[in-house]
Amino acid sequence: MTQKKMAIIATKGTLDWAYPPLILSSTAAALGYEVQVFCTFYGLSLLRKDLSGIRISPLANPAMPMPVPMPVLVQVLPGMEAMATMMMKNKMKAKGVASLDELRSLCLEADVKFIACQMTVDLFEFKPEEFIDGIEFGGATTFLDFAGSADIQLYI
Amino acid sequence: MTQKKMAIIATKGTLDWAYPPLILSSTAAALGYEVQVFCTFYGLSLLRKDLSGIRISPLANPAMPMPVPMPVLVQVLPGMEAMATMMMKNKMKAKGVASLDELRSLCLEADVKFIACQMTVDLFEFKPEEFIDGIEFGGATTFLDFAGSADIQLYI
Amino acid sequence: MTQKKMAIIATKGTLDWAYPPLILSSTAAALGYEVQVFCTFYGLSLLRKDLSGIRISPLANPAMPMPVPMPVLVQVLPGMEAMATMMMKNKMKAKGVASLDELRSLCLEADVKFIACQMTVDLFEFKPEEFIDGIEFGGATTFLDFAGSADIQLYI
Repeated sequence: MTQKKMAIIATKGTLDWAYPPLILSSTAAALGYEVQVFCTFYGLSLLRKDLSGIRISPLANPAMPMPVPMPVLVQVLPGMEAMATMMMKNKMKAKGVASLDELRSLCLEADVKFIACQMTVDLFEFKPEEFIDGIEFGGATTFLDFAGSADIQLYI
Repeated sequence: MTQKKMAIIATKGTLDWAYPPLILSSTAAALGYEVQVFCTFYGLSLLRKDLSGIRISPLANPAMPMPVPMPVLVQVLPGMEAMATMMMKNKMKAKGVASLDELRSLCLEADVKFIACQMTVDLFEFKPEEFIDGIEFGGATTFLDFAGSADIQLYI
Repeated sequence: MTQKKMAIIATKGTLDWAYPPLILSSTAAALGYEVQVFCTFYGLSLLRKDLSGIRISPLANPAMPMPVPMPVLVQVLPGMEAMATMMMKNKMKAKGVASLDELRSLCLEADVKFIACQMTVDLFEFKPEEFIDGIEFGGATTFLDFAGSADIQLYI
């Protein structure tokens, strides 16, 4: 039986949307999949050594469960983004959800391959020395080469 | 000929993004597909018995067609989210677009399987008794088991 | 060897999310793929003759790299969306990133097929005469017909 493959494009860099690529990749790798995660646009944040700057915004997402209903006019006040981020992190910790760092380590140990999109690294002036070791750099061709024969492709 | 399969991850809970998983699933089921929808993060909203709380936000989406151009500073005012939601629902009704309830019923009648992500149910403290009957609970492994042999996988 | 196929659903209409479908489609077409892009919801913006109205919002995206950190309360001020759009376009030009117009032309020359979602054209009252020539109109069935036998499917 040939090894299954999963190709992910990770394009978001907020606390909520940083989780799905890492959860799916670490789980798929544990199930024996070969996994590649192509990080582009804000998804490059997933490759930073220091993940502590990843935040969440309650804005424009009326579906986000909030402990206290909060009008949009309050959500835009200074400090609310930091507060929402802290609340979400505390809740995750209390519920035993692994941190982004822990999930990414699981991925790296399981040989998930992370690829940084060279075009958006240049565009957003990300500094490659801020990235973790062991990643590759590539473009849409790099993604398609793998995705074209993968069993699962997801754009996150 | 073997039955085609479609696997969807539904992660959003706003009025606009609640539609694509339900439209695609009901259509695919009508075409004879076996369909599974894995609901996680804000996508758990799709499983609530009462869908009337699903709203839309004009914020951060300059591509949303608005009857009257509206500065961001007005969009954040109290009541604007409710107004945008009402306007969108009225327009959908006027144009004969099925409601979320109707589309979900079509899905259920056609044996689309809905799976609630146990981790986010716990994290966001959704109450399972608020969910419709007949759904299952699972994790990333549940999704991958089906998606790995599906013909179509979409992350919405 | 049979020709590879890629099916994309393009649902977003902001400057950042207009790029991925056009970059992936033009690249895939150059690699010999048959490509279909189903444009629905705000993704219909990609089909407008005039793409100059496509904008970007810094709101609700704390992961967007900003030259100067800017509190949310400033981001909602009049003119900030226009300023963010102008800054992003200038940066793209300075970095040699192709414009949306150029990428779409590449796609059209390479026979990428664009399909407008008839339901959302009606719902949002897009005027078909504002769209480029050579596109088709269809629904979820049109998408699934192609996607069901495609090698890559992405919901953007």
